Amino acid sequence: MIHLTVITVGNLKESYWRDAVAEYEKRLGAYCKPSIIQLKEGSLSENPSEGEIRACLDEEGKRILDAIPPRAYRIALCVEGKQFSSEGLAKKLDSILSENGSICLIIGSSHGISQKVKDLCQLRLSVSELTFPHQMMRVLLLEVLYRSFSILHGSKYHK
Amino acid sequence: MIHLTVITVGNLKESYWRDAVAEYEKRLGAYCKPSIIQLKEGSLSENPSEGEIRACLDEEGKRILDAIPPRAYRIALCVEGKQFSSEGLAKKLDSILSENGSICLIIGSSHGISQKVKDLCQLRLSVSELTFPHQMMRVLLLEVLYRSFSILHGSKYHK
Repeated sequence: MIHLTVITVGNLKESYWRDAVAEYEKRLGAYCKPSIIQLKEGSLSENPSEGEIRACLDEEGKRILDAIPPRAYRIALCVEGKQFSSEGLAKKLDSILSENGSICLIIGSSHGISQKVKDLCQLRLSVSELTFPHQMMRVLLLEVLYRSFSILHGSKYHK
Repeated sequence: MIHLTVITVGNLKESYWRDAVAEYEKRLGAYCKPSIIQLKEGSLSENPSEGEIRACLDEEGKRILDAIPPRAYRIALCVEGKQFSSEGLAKKLDSILSENGSICLIIGSSHGISQKVKDLCQLRLSVSELTFPHQMMRVLLLEVLYRSFSILHGSKYHK
């Protein structure tokens, strides 16, 4: 069974995001063993300086690295990462899964992901040039993964 | 007051999408007069041929064209359209709004948008190279528009 871990930072405040995440988690269960790890967001002042933000990201980054399952293939979600078509991503996922039984995807906090975490990831994945709230990104990513698995299994979900 | 029309095809089946759309509609109300037009999805057989799909898109397309407010600046959402960064899209929106008081964005059905509708739009906008369900795209687009307005108004929503 494929182990799929999604590491996130911060709570889902809106109930509609929580409901959507629960639904996609359930659907993904048909294809893999999904697990969502939710870390606490670092605290920042009202108007944080660049330095404060960097220190916060570094601290969050340490906890992210601790949470990555050993031997998992590591993917960081970042706006500057590589974009794929749905078919292209399914193919990439297939090739990753041929050599790895465990995949870990990382979504940062509202300020992003530390450079150290990005450097330790084997792939930087971008969903869009646009910025989305990290809460919404959790739903987006689960949909993207569900669609990838559906394509690989020849389901009718992706027409 | 800016008139913002979003034309969509098909119902939102999941309550979490409906709740998210309602929330973003409310938030957008601070910046414009949003209105979502939901057209009925054309009916197709279980395994439709290319021809059937084209005929269905053409028929949906006619109803979409009828629903576009006169003199609105027309934007079609398509995977092959132009992508923007959040700041870039806000700038584009600003330039559109300097000459138009009404904008109409069109999200197709699960099979897309007819060529005729695409041809009649002044801009084809892409959110991602990835395909998303058209229900989810409605939420995505509203978030994208809300972020654009927030940037133009200098709010802290987009950091």
